[in-house]
Amino acid sequence: MATFIAMNHFQVNPERAEDFESIWRERETFLHEAPGFLHFALLRGDEAGSYISHSTWKSREAFEAWTQSEAFRKGHAQARTPEGVVTGHPRLATFEAILEQEA
Amino acid sequence: MATFIAMNHFQVNPERAEDFESIWRERETFLHEAPGFLHFALLRGDEAGSYISHSTWKSREAFEAWTQSEAFRKGHAQARTPEGVVTGHPRLATFEAILEQEA
Repeated sequence: MATFIAMNHFQVNPERAEDFESIWRERETFLHEAPGFLHFALLRGDEAGSYISHSTWKSREAFEAWTQSEAFRKGHAQARTPEGVVTGHPRLATFEAILEQEA
Repeated sequence: MATFIAMNHFQVNPERAEDFESIWRERETFLHEAPGFLHFALLRGDEAGSYISHSTWKSREAFEAWTQSEAFRKGHAQARTPEGVVTGHPRLATFEAILEQEA
């Protein structure tokens, strides 16, 4: 059972980056309710306006179960991002860790 | 001091994916020698041929020091990937974690 990683890429208007970050800071993710959830991070790219919501799961099955859950629905039913903050659609990419090394 | 993440994206010929994975399985990364190193994973994307070498660091400074180190030089002085395995140049993207949540 491989660690599973979901990365949702957002392209943000660089002038609205603070608004985007505030929305995430105030957002309740409900991830702590999700079985198999390991870690979440919001990543700010060195490339202006590039952000990733990055979540790590015990398995692909855990991630997929979460996307079907009430916690997911609640997390995504919150106030929408105001217009002009995000440009284009978020782009989801999913991965399995085939090698891992801890410090 | 924010957690720092470096992701190097490789596009691999899907017919050579096993070769690519073998090279990484046999490779000595020397990352355990690097101060501030936290975690490494080789990620296989659900999109055919998409791989990321994903490393997490205590800080941007720790990552940058590693790229200047003898350990880095040793890790990258190993046998080259045979021709035809990777298509195009690897693409490095770097990030700071601005929010983090553990299970």
